[in-house]
Amino acid sequence: MFSSETESLTKSERTRANLRETALHSFRELGYDATTIRLIAQETGVSVGTTHYHFPSKHHLVQELYLDVQQAHLDVALPLLDSTNDLVERLGIVYRTGLDGLAPYHPFAPEFLSAAVSPRSPINPLSTESAPALAIVVDLFRAAVDGAKHSLPVDIARRLPDALVLGHLLLALFWVYDRSPGQERSFQLLDRGLRILRGALPLARIPLLRTPLREALDLIAEVRA
Amino acid sequence: MFSSETESLTKSERTRANLRETALHSFRELGYDATTIRLIAQETGVSVGTTHYHFPSKHHLVQELYLDVQQAHLDVALPLLDSTNDLVERLGIVYRTGLDGLAPYHPFAPEFLSAAVSPRSPINPLSTESAPALAIVVDLFRAAVDGAKHSLPVDIARRLPDALVLGHLLLALFWVYDRSPGQERSFQLLDRGLRILRGALPLARIPLLRTPLREALDLIAEVRA
Repeated sequence: MFSSETESLTKSERTRANLRETALHSFRELGYDATTIRLIAQETGVSVGTTHYHFPSKHHLVQELYLDVQQAHLDVALPLLDSTNDLVERLGIVYRTGLDGLAPYHPFAPEFLSAAVSPRSPINPLSTESAPALAIVVDLFRAAVDGAKHSLPVDIARRLPDALVLGHLLLALFWVYDRSPGQERSFQLLDRGLRILRGALPLARIPLLRTPLREALDLIAEVRA
Repeated sequence: MFSSETESLTKSERTRANLRETALHSFRELGYDATTIRLIAQETGVSVGTTHYHFPSKHHLVQELYLDVQQAHLDVALPLLDSTNDLVERLGIVYRTGLDGLAPYHPFAPEFLSAAVSPRSPINPLSTESAPALAIVVDLFRAAVDGAKHSLPVDIARRLPDALVLGHLLLALFWVYDRSPGQERSFQLLDRGLRILRGALPLARIPLLRTPLREALDLIAEVRA
Protein backbone atom coordinates (compact mmCIF):
# COMPACT_ATOMS: atom_id res chain seq x y z
CA MET A 1 0.00 0.00 0.00
CA PHE A 2 2.84 2.35 0.89
CA SER A 3 5.01 0.98 -1.89
CA SER A 4 2.61 1.93 -4.68
CA GLU A 5 2.66 5.44 -3.31
CA THR A 6 6.44 5.40 -3.23
CA GLU A 7 6.65 4.14 -6.81
CA SER A 8 4.85 7.20 -8.09
CA LEU A 9 7.52 9.45 -6.58
CA THR A 10 10.52 10.65 -8.55
CA LYS A 11 13.96 9.54 -7.41
CA SER A 12 14.57 12.96 -5.87
CA GLU A 13 11.27 12.82 -4.00
CA ARG A 14 12.11 9.33 -2.72
CA THR A 15 15.50 10.54 -1.49
CA ARG A 16 13.86 13.45 0.28
CA ALA A 17 11.29 11.16 1.91
CA ASN A 18 14.03 8.77 3.04
CA LEU A 19 16.13 11.56 4.52
CA ARG A 20 13.06 12.87 6.31
CA GLU A 21 12.24 9.43 7.76
CA THR A 22 15.83 8.93 8.93
CA ALA A 23 15.83 12.34 10.60
CA LEU A 24 12.48 11.82 12.36
CA HIS A 25 13.71 8.45 13.62
CA SER A 26 16.99 9.97 14.80
CA PHE A 27 15.33 12.88 16.65
CA ARG A 28 13.13 10.35 18.43
CA GLU A 29 15.88 7.87 19.31
CA LEU A 30 18.98 10.06 19.71
CA GLY A 31 17.58 13.50 20.44
CA TYR A 32 18.32 16.93 19.07
CA ASP A 33 22.02 17.34 19.85
CA ALA A 34 23.14 13.99 18.42
CA THR A 35 21.16 14.35 15.19
CA THR A 36 23.42 15.94 12.58
CA ILE A 37 23.21 16.44 8.83
CA ARG A 38 26.31 14.25 8.50
CA LEU A 39 24.69 11.41 10.45
CA ILE A 40 21.44 11.62 8.50
CA ALA A 41 23.35 11.51 5.22
CA GLN A 42 25.34 8.48 6.36
CA GLU A 43 22.33 6.57 7.72
CA THR A 44 20.33 7.24 4.54
CA GLY A 45 23.28 6.29 2.33
CA VAL A 46 23.49 9.56 0.42
CA SER A 47 26.11 12.31 0.31
CA VAL A 48 26.17 15.31 2.63
CA GLY A 49 25.76 17.48 -0.48
CA THR A 50 22.55 15.69 -1.48
CA THR A 51 21.25 16.01 2.07
CA HIS A 52 21.98 19.74 2.06
CA TYR A 53 20.19 20.06 -1.27
CA HIS A 54 16.97 18.74 0.29
CA PHE A 55 17.44 20.16 3.79
CA PRO A 56 19.82 23.18 3.86
CA SER A 57 20.21 22.89 7.64
CA LYS A 58 19.29 20.81 10.65
CA HIS A 59 16.61 23.37 11.39
CA HIS A 60 14.75 22.35 8.26
CA LEU A 61 14.68 18.80 9.58
CA VAL A 62 13.32 19.99 12.93
CA GLN A 63 10.49 21.71 11.05
CA GLU A 64 9.68 18.33 9.48
CA LEU A 65 9.56 16.90 12.99
CA TYR A 66 7.20 19.67 14.16
CA LEU A 67 4.90 19.05 11.20
CA ASP A 68 4.99 15.31 11.84
CA VAL A 69 4.19 15.69 15.56
CA GLN A 70 1.38 18.19 14.98
CA GLN A 71 -0.14 16.19 12.12
CA ALA A 72 -0.10 13.06 14.30
CA HIS A 73 -1.71 15.08 17.10
CA LEU A 74 -4.48 16.17 14.73
CA ASP A 75 -4.99 12.61 13.42
CA VAL A 76 -5.33 11.19 16.93
CA ALA A 77 -7.40 13.99 18.47
CA LEU A 78 -9.98 14.71 15.75
CA PRO A 79 -11.77 11.30 15.82
CA LEU A 80 -11.82 11.37 19.64
CA LEU A 81 -13.53 14.78 19.60
CA ASP A 82 -16.58 13.08 18.06
CA SER A 83 -17.22 11.33 21.37
CA THR A 84 -18.42 14.45 23.22
CA ASN A 85 -19.78 17.93 22.66
CA ASP A 86 -18.78 19.14 26.13
CA LEU A 87 -16.26 21.97 25.70
CA VAL A 88 -14.03 21.15 28.67
CA GLU A 89 -13.97 17.43 27.80
CA ARG A 90 -13.01 18.30 24.24
CA LEU A 91 -10.20 20.56 25.42
CA GLY A 92 -9.04 17.78 27.74
CA ILE A 93 -8.83 15.43 24.74
CA VAL A 94 -6.72 17.89 22.75
CA TYR A 95 -4.35 18.68 25.63
CA ARG A 96 -3.98 15.03 26.71
CA THR A 97 -3.33 13.64 23.22
CA GLY A 98 -0.85 16.50 22.76
CA LEU A 99 1.15 15.42 25.82
CA ASP A 100 0.86 11.74 24.78
CA GLY A 101 2.39 12.53 21.40
CA LEU A 102 5.34 14.31 23.02
CA ALA A 103 6.11 11.42 25.40
CA PRO A 104 8.84 9.72 23.30
CA TYR A 105 10.77 13.00 23.19
CA HIS A 106 10.80 13.66 26.93
CA PRO A 107 14.35 12.37 27.53
CA PHE A 108 15.60 14.89 24.97
CA ALA A 109 13.20 17.70 25.78
CA PRO A 110 15.80 19.93 27.53
CA GLU A 111 18.02 19.79 24.40
CA PHE A 112 15.13 20.76 22.14
CA LEU A 113 14.07 23.52 24.53
CA SER A 114 17.57 25.04 24.75
CA ALA A 115 17.86 25.03 20.97
CA ALA A 116 14.35 26.35 20.34
CA VAL A 117 13.85 28.95 23.05
CA SER A 118 15.95 31.78 21.65
CA PRO A 119 13.93 34.40 19.78
CA ARG A 120 16.65 34.18 17.11
CA SER A 121 16.12 30.44 16.69
CA PRO A 122 14.47 29.34 13.43
CA ILE A 123 13.02 26.37 15.36
CA ASN A 124 11.34 28.56 17.96
CA PRO A 125 7.68 27.42 17.93
CA LEU A 126 6.59 31.05 17.46
CA SER A 127 9.05 31.79 14.62
CA THR A 128 7.94 32.41 11.04
CA GLU A 129 9.59 29.13 10.07
CA SER A 130 7.41 27.21 12.53
CA ALA A 131 4.16 28.93 11.53
CA PRO A 132 2.81 26.04 9.39
CA ALA A 133 3.23 23.58 12.28
CA LEU A 134 1.71 25.96 14.81
CA ALA A 135 -1.25 26.60 12.49
CA ILE A 136 -2.18 22.91 12.77
CA VAL A 137 -2.50 23.23 16.56
CA VAL A 138 -4.47 26.47 16.33
CA ASP A 139 -6.90 24.78 13.92
CA LEU A 140 -7.24 21.81 16.25
CA PHE A 141 -8.15 24.01 19.23
CA ARG A 142 -10.55 25.99 17.06
CA ALA A 143 -12.23 22.73 16.01
CA ALA A 144 -12.49 21.72 19.68
CA VAL A 145 -14.21 25.01 20.55
CA ASP A 146 -16.40 25.33 17.44
CA GLY A 147 -17.72 21.76 17.65
CA ALA A 148 -18.67 22.10 21.32
CA LYS A 149 -22.08 22.88 22.75
CA HIS A 150 -21.38 25.88 24.95
CA SER A 151 -23.06 29.11 25.88
CA LEU A 152 -20.04 31.39 25.74
CA PRO A 153 -20.50 34.87 24.28
CA VAL A 154 -19.33 34.97 20.66
CA ASP A 155 -16.57 37.53 21.35
CA ILE A 156 -15.11 35.26 24.03
CA ALA A 157 -15.40 32.01 22.03
CA ARG A 158 -13.69 33.61 19.04
CA ARG A 159 -10.74 34.71 21.16
CA LEU A 160 -10.39 31.41 23.01
CA PRO A 161 -8.24 29.29 20.59
CA ASP A 162 -5.23 31.66 20.78
CA ALA A 163 -5.29 31.55 24.58
CA LEU A 164 -5.70 27.76 24.53
CA VAL A 165 -2.66 27.37 22.27
CA LEU A 166 -0.60 29.57 24.59
CA GLY A 167 -1.82 27.30 27.41
CA HIS A 168 -0.65 24.32 25.32
CA LEU A 169 2.85 25.84 24.92
CA LEU A 170 3.09 26.68 28.63
CA LEU A 171 1.88 23.18 29.56
CA ALA A 172 4.57 21.74 27.27
CA LEU A 173 7.13 23.97 29.03
CA PHE A 174 5.98 22.63 32.41
CA TRP A 175 6.15 19.08 30.97
CA VAL A 176 9.82 19.59 29.95
CA TYR A 177 10.55 20.34 33.61
CA ASP A 178 8.40 17.46 34.90
CA ARG A 179 10.54 14.62 36.24
CA SER A 180 7.67 12.62 37.77
CA PRO A 181 7.17 9.05 36.39
CA GLY A 182 5.35 9.24 33.06
CA GLN A 183 5.15 13.01 33.61
CA GLU A 184 2.02 12.37 35.69
CA ARG A 185 2.32 15.79 37.37
CA SER A 186 1.73 17.45 33.99
CA PHE A 187 -1.47 15.45 33.54
CA GLN A 188 -2.56 16.29 37.10
CA LEU A 189 -1.84 19.97 36.49
CA LEU A 190 -3.91 19.76 33.32
CA ASP A 191 -6.82 18.10 35.16
CA ARG A 192 -6.77 20.78 37.85
CA GLY A 193 -6.63 23.50 35.23
CA LEU A 194 -9.59 21.98 33.39
CA ARG A 195 -11.59 21.69 36.63
CA ILE A 196 -10.98 25.38 37.34
CA LEU A 197 -11.92 26.21 33.75
CA ARG A 198 -15.19 24.25 34.12
CA GLY A 199 -16.05 26.29 37.21
CA ALA A 200 -14.95 29.56 35.63
CA LEU A 201 -16.44 29.29 32.11
CA PRO A 202 -20.06 30.02 33.11
CA LEU A 203 -18.79 33.23 34.74
CA ALA A 204 -17.78 34.55 31.31
CA ARG A 205 -21.49 35.28 30.75
CA ILE A 206 -21.58 37.74 33.68
CA PRO A 207 -21.44 41.21 32.04
CA LEU A 208 -19.12 42.56 34.76
CA LEU A 209 -16.53 39.88 33.94
CA ARG A 210 -16.90 39.79 30.22
CA THR A 211 -14.93 42.99 29.53
CA PRO A 212 -11.83 42.16 31.64
CA LEU A 213 -11.92 38.62 30.24
CA ARG A 214 -12.10 39.84 26.66
CA GLU A 215 -9.26 42.30 27.37
CA ALA A 216 -7.17 39.54 28.93
CA LEU A 217 -7.72 37.32 25.87
CA ASP A 218 -6.71 40.20 23.57
CA LEU A 219 -3.59 40.65 25.68
CA ILE A 220 -2.76 36.96 25.22
CA ALA A 221 -3.24 37.25 21.45
CA GLU A 222 -0.85 40.23 21.57
CA VAL A 223 1.74 38.17 23.47
CA ARG A 224 1.60 35.47 20.81
CA ALA A 225 1.95 37.93 17.94
CA MET B 1 34.76 55.42 51.04
CA PHE B 2 34.87 52.11 49.19
CA SER B 3 38.62 51.74 49.89
CA SER B 4 38.25 51.65 53.67
CA GLU B 5 35.80 48.79 53.20
CA THR B 6 38.24 47.07 50.88
CA GLU B 7 41.14 47.49 53.30
CA SER B 8 39.38 45.47 55.97
CA LEU B 9 39.14 42.50 53.60
CA THR B 10 41.72 39.72 53.54
CA LYS B 11 43.74 39.26 50.36
CA SER B 12 41.60 36.25 49.41
CA GLU B 13 38.40 38.22 49.93
CA ARG B 14 39.78 41.05 47.82
CA THR B 15 40.67 38.64 45.01
CA ARG B 16 37.17 37.16 45.14
CA ALA B 17 35.59 40.65 45.06
CA ASN B 18 37.78 41.63 42.09
CA LEU B 19 36.93 38.47 40.16
CA ARG B 20 33.24 39.08 40.85
CA GLU B 21 33.43 42.68 39.63
CA THR B 22 35.28 41.65 36.46
CA ALA B 23 32.68 38.97 35.75
CA LEU B 24 29.69 41.28 36.33
CA HIS B 25 31.28 43.84 34.02
CA SER B 26 31.96 41.19 31.37
CA PHE B 27 28.42 39.76 31.45
CA ARG B 28 27.11 43.26 30.97
CA GLU B 29 29.49 44.30 28.20
CA LEU B 30 30.23 41.04 26.38
CA GLY B 31 27.29 38.82 27.28
CA TYR B 32 27.00 35.26 28.49
CA ASP B 33 28.72 33.32 25.70
CA ALA B 34 31.87 35.46 25.54
CA THR B 35 32.40 35.51 29.31
CA THR B 36 34.68 32.63 30.24
CA ILE B 37 36.60 31.66 33.37
CA ARG B 38 39.82 32.08 31.36
CA LEU B 39 38.91 35.62 30.33
CA ILE B 40 37.90 36.61 33.86
CA ALA B 41 41.19 35.27 35.24
CA GLN B 42 43.18 37.15 32.61
CA GLU B 43 41.29 40.45 33.05
CA THR B 44 41.64 40.28 36.83
CA GLY B 45 45.30 39.36 36.59
CA VAL B 46 45.09 36.09 38.53
CA SER B 47 45.58 32.47 37.50
CA VAL B 48 42.80 30.21 36.19
CA GLY B 49 43.44 28.00 39.24
CA THR B 50 42.80 30.88 41.66
CA THR B 51 39.66 31.80 39.74
CA HIS B 52 38.40 28.21 39.93
CA TYR B 53 39.12 28.22 43.68
CA HIS B 54 36.70 31.13 44.19
CA PHE B 55 34.23 30.27 41.43
CA PRO B 56 34.33 26.57 40.45
CA SER B 57 32.42 27.26 37.23
CA LYS B 58 30.96 30.00 35.09
CA HIS B 59 27.57 29.14 36.60
CA HIS B 60 28.76 30.38 39.97
CA LEU B 61 29.56 33.72 38.38
CA VAL B 62 26.10 33.87 36.81
CA GLN B 63 24.61 33.38 40.28
CA GLU B 64 26.62 36.43 41.41
CA LEU B 65 25.09 38.32 38.51
CA TYR B 66 21.57 37.22 39.51
CA LEU B 67 22.16 38.34 43.10
CA ASP B 68 23.57 41.65 41.90
CA VAL B 69 20.63 42.31 39.57
CA GLN B 70 18.00 41.34 42.18
CA GLN B 71 19.69 43.32 44.96
CA ALA B 72 19.86 46.39 42.70
CA HIS B 73 16.17 45.86 41.84
CA LEU B 74 15.31 45.80 45.56
CA ASP B 75 17.43 48.90 46.26
CA VAL B 76 15.74 50.88 43.50
CA ALA B 77 12.17 49.67 44.06
CA LEU B 78 11.83 49.79 47.86
CA PRO B 79 12.21 53.59 48.30
CA LEU B 80 9.83 54.20 45.37
CA LEU B 81 7.18 52.03 47.03
CA ASP B 82 6.93 54.64 49.81
CA SER B 83 5.33 57.04 47.32
CA THR B 84 1.98 55.20 47.15
CA ASN B 85 -0.16 52.71 49.01
CA ASP B 86 -2.19 51.79 45.94
CA LEU B 87 -1.63 48.09 45.22
CA VAL B 88 -1.62 48.28 41.42
CA GLU B 89 0.67 51.33 41.41
CA ARG B 90 3.05 49.50 43.75
CA LEU B 91 3.08 46.45 41.49
CA GLY B 92 3.72 48.73 38.53
CA ILE B 93 6.78 50.16 40.32
CA VAL B 94 8.20 46.69 41.00
CA TYR B 95 7.60 45.40 37.46
CA ARG B 96 8.88 48.58 35.77
CA THR B 97 12.07 48.88 37.83
CA GLY B 98 12.62 45.17 37.18
CA LEU B 99 12.55 45.71 33.42
CA ASP B 100 14.70 48.86 33.75
CA GLY B 101 17.37 46.87 35.59
CA LEU B 102 17.46 44.26 32.85
CA ALA B 103 17.84 46.81 30.03
CA PRO B 104 21.68 46.65 29.70
CA TYR B 105 21.45 42.88 29.18
CA HIS B 106 18.89 42.94 26.38
CA PRO B 107 21.42 42.51 23.53
CA PHE B 108 22.61 39.29 25.20
CA ALA B 109 19.26 38.10 26.53
CA PRO B 110 18.84 35.27 23.98
CA GLU B 111 22.23 33.81 25.04
CA PHE B 112 21.29 33.93 28.70
CA LEU B 113 17.88 32.43 27.98
CA SER B 114 19.28 29.53 25.93
CA ALA B 115 21.77 28.75 28.68
CA ALA B 116 19.28 29.11 31.53
CA VAL B 117 16.10 27.56 30.19
CA SER B 118 16.99 23.90 30.48
CA PRO B 119 15.61 22.24 33.63
CA ARG B 120 19.09 20.70 34.00
CA SER B 121 20.75 24.12 34.00
CA PRO B 122 22.18 25.30 37.33
CA ILE B 123 21.47 28.86 36.20
CA ASN B 124 17.78 28.20 35.60
CA PRO B 125 15.98 30.90 37.64
CA LEU B 126 13.88 28.17 39.30
CA SER B 127 16.84 25.89 40.13
CA THR B 128 18.02 25.27 43.70
CA GLU B 129 21.20 27.17 42.87
CA SER B 130 19.19 30.27 41.96
CA ALA B 131 16.91 30.12 45.01
CA PRO B 132 18.68 32.91 46.98
CA ALA B 133 18.35 35.34 44.07
CA LEU B 134 14.72 34.41 43.44
CA ALA B 135 13.93 34.83 47.15
CA ILE B 136 14.85 38.54 46.87
CA VAL B 137 12.21 39.03 44.15
CA VAL B 138 9.58 37.10 46.10
CA ASP B 139 10.25 39.28 49.16
CA LEU B 140 10.00 42.42 47.04
CA PHE B 141 6.59 41.44 45.66
CA ARG B 142 5.44 40.45 49.15
CA ALA B 143 6.50 43.89 50.43
CA ALA B 144 4.59 45.52 47.56
CA VAL B 145 1.41 43.60 48.50
CA ASP B 146 1.74 43.81 52.28
CA GLY B 147 2.42 47.55 52.34
CA ALA B 148 -0.56 48.34 50.13
CA LYS B 149 -3.98 49.48 51.22
CA HIS B 150 -6.29 46.95 49.60
CA SER B 151 -9.43 45.07 50.45
CA LEU B 152 -8.46 41.65 49.11
CA PRO B 153 -9.50 38.61 51.14
CA VAL B 154 -6.57 37.36 53.24
CA ASP B 155 -6.39 33.97 51.49
CA ILE B 156 -6.05 35.72 48.12
CA ALA B 157 -3.50 38.35 49.28
CA ARG B 158 -1.33 35.65 50.84
CA ARG B 159 -1.22 33.68 47.59
CA LEU B 160 -0.60 36.71 45.37
CA PRO B 161 3.24 37.14 45.56
CA ASP B 162 3.96 33.71 44.01
CA ALA B 163 1.66 34.47 41.07
CA LEU B 164 3.18 37.94 40.71
CA VAL B 165 6.70 36.48 40.55
CA LEU B 166 5.58 34.02 37.88
CA GLY B 167 4.15 37.04 36.05
CA HIS B 168 7.56 38.73 36.44
CA LEU B 169 9.34 35.72 34.88
CA LEU B 170 6.84 35.52 32.01
CA LEU B 171 7.14 39.28 31.42
CA ALA B 172 10.93 38.86 31.32
CA LEU B 173 10.46 36.05 28.79
CA PHE B 174 8.30 38.33 26.62
CA TRP B 175 10.94 41.08 27.03
CA VAL B 176 13.66 38.77 25.67
CA TYR B 177 11.56 38.40 22.51
CA ASP B 178 10.75 42.10 22.33
CA ARG B 179 12.63 43.82 19.49
CA SER B 180 10.78 47.14 19.72
CA PRO B 181 12.94 50.25 20.48
CA GLY B 182 13.71 50.36 24.19
CA GLN B 183 11.49 47.28 24.55
CA GLU B 184 8.52 49.63 24.71
CA ARG B 185 6.11 46.80 23.82
CA SER B 186 7.00 45.07 27.09
CA PHE B 187 6.15 48.21 29.04
CA GLN B 188 2.90 48.60 27.09
CA LEU B 189 2.01 44.97 27.76
CA LEU B 190 2.70 45.57 31.44
CA ASP B 191 0.51 48.68 31.49
CA ARG B 192 -2.35 46.80 29.83
CA GLY B 193 -1.93 43.92 32.26
CA LEU B 194 -2.01 46.30 35.22
CA ARG B 195 -5.12 48.04 33.87
CA ILE B 196 -6.89 44.68 33.58
CA LEU B 197 -5.71 43.78 37.08
CA ARG B 198 -7.12 47.04 38.45
CA GLY B 199 -10.49 46.22 36.95
CA ALA B 200 -10.37 42.60 38.05
CA LEU B 201 -9.06 42.90 41.63
CA PRO B 202 -12.32 44.11 43.19
CA LEU B 203 -14.01 41.04 41.70
CA ALA B 204 -11.89 38.81 43.98
CA ARG B 205 -14.27 39.81 46.79
CA ILE B 206 -17.25 38.24 44.99
CA PRO B 207 -17.80 34.87 46.78
CA LEU B 208 -18.58 33.10 43.49
CA LEU B 209 -15.16 34.08 42.10
CA ARG B 210 -13.10 33.68 45.20
CA THR B 211 -12.89 29.88 45.07
CA PRO B 212 -11.79 29.52 41.42
CA LEU B 213 -9.35 32.40 41.94
CA ARG B 214 -7.86 30.78 45.06
CA GLU B 215 -7.60 27.46 43.20
CA ALA B 216 -5.93 29.17 40.23
CA LEU B 217 -3.38 30.82 42.57
CA ASP B 218 -2.66 27.46 44.23
CA LEU B 219 -2.15 25.97 40.79
CA ILE B 220 0.37 28.71 39.98
CA ALA B 221 2.24 28.04 43.24
CA GLU B 222 2.32 24.36 42.22
CA VAL B 223 3.79 25.26 38.82
CA ARG B 224 6.59 27.21 40.47
CA ALA B 225 7.41 24.40 42.93
